[in-house]
Amino acid sequence: MTAIPVKTIERLSKYRRVINRLLEKGETYIFSHDLAHLIDSTPAQVRRDLMQIGHTGSPKKGYELKQLKENINALMDDSDGQGIGLAGIGYLGRAIMNYFGGRNPKLTIKAAFDTDPDKINRVISGCRCYHIDQIPEVVKKENITIGIVTVPSSAAQDIVNRFVRTGIKAIINWAPTPLQTPPDVFVESRDITMSIEKAAFYAKTLNSKKK
Amino acid sequence: MTAIPVKTIERLSKYRRVINRLLEKGETYIFSHDLAHLIDSTPAQVRRDLMQIGHTGSPKKGYELKQLKENINALMDDSDGQGIGLAGIGYLGRAIMNYFGGRNPKLTIKAAFDTDPDKINRVISGCRCYHIDQIPEVVKKENITIGIVTVPSSAAQDIVNRFVRTGIKAIINWAPTPLQTPPDVFVESRDITMSIEKAAFYAKTLNSKKK
Repeated sequence: MTAIPVKTIERLSKYRRVINRLLEKGETYIFSHDLAHLIDSTPAQVRRDLMQIGHTGSPKKGYELKQLKENINALMDDSDGQGIGLAGIGYLGRAIMNYFGGRNPKLTIKAAFDTDPDKINRVISGCRCYHIDQIPEVVKKENITIGIVTVPSSAAQDIVNRFVRTGIKAIINWAPTPLQTPPDVFVESRDITMSIEKAAFYAKTLNSKKK
Repeated sequence: MTAIPVKTIERLSKYRRVINRLLEKGETYIFSHDLAHLIDSTPAQVRRDLMQIGHTGSPKKGYELKQLKENINALMDDSDGQGIGLAGIGYLGRAIMNYFGGRNPKLTIKAAFDTDPDKINRVISGCRCYHIDQIPEVVKKENITIGIVTVPSSAAQDIVNRFVRTGIKAIINWAPTPLQTPPDVFVESRDITMSIEKAAFYAKTLNSKKK
């Protein structure tokens, strides 16, 4: 199961979100080309992805949504649930806390960490805030397995070291700096500068074509 | 020039950031293996990327940093500068405004758009705020070529339509919803839910290996 490519995992997350919306609307089946359209992919890709998690549809009715959702859940979720710890309660940290709260019943931001005394021991966006020195005890107590880093660049490596020392194996880094981590830790880097500069390059290229 | 792969553009953005830091420290040359190490890539990849923008190093001294920076600038930047418009002045919008302000002299967030009367006509994080109905005039006046979308999902498509109608060709979408855009518009989607669910999958997988 671990041999599933990263890109497939990304699409499974997107399929599930679309499926949840369809189930809420009372729909029961979907064809691969409709599902492909909804996540901006191709029908062949959808069929390959779902085959890989052992799900096949019926040629007449398509994929049964409820069963499909359960198959994706079985692959993606930890049945006991997973806790998330977030370090850095600035605008970005709060945006993620507000946005992600309650979105996935198996994934909860259990704790936020900062060094600012005005934030520690408060509940912000529904989430208890602690000093970063409390990371070891809180990670253990709250069964946190995922760390989100929204501190400034200068503090990012220190926070990542603290997370890694507790045994956390997956980190999402929003600080614009490369991180050193052991090879058995998964790091997802979300680089805001890079995404803006990339878009700017395409804006420039596409505009010069117009001329 | 437009045939340069997206992944190369992403790495060029990272190289440049590293180069700027090295130049500030007074360094003048770098070897491909050192540059590779700093952005977590390989020396062969670095050499391929830089060859592609017509830059070659000296075997004895490596790459000359100032010239390399200028070559990357020549490819990536619009010499006249480019303006960015951001729609949705919530926590995420403010995080980006705070973070990106002043970081790249050729790329400036010129305007922010919202519907909240408390925000309109104010200057927030150094950026003038307007009503979304003013998008056409402000985009034109400020030479905005890139749109950033940080509104809720329900408003995202409307904002994107407004941006696209002004002629904007590059959009960065932080709303967790797929967008419909004409084929000649570049869209970079930054999906927070997907990145967290992906990390959760790897946390689960890596933890089950441990047991």
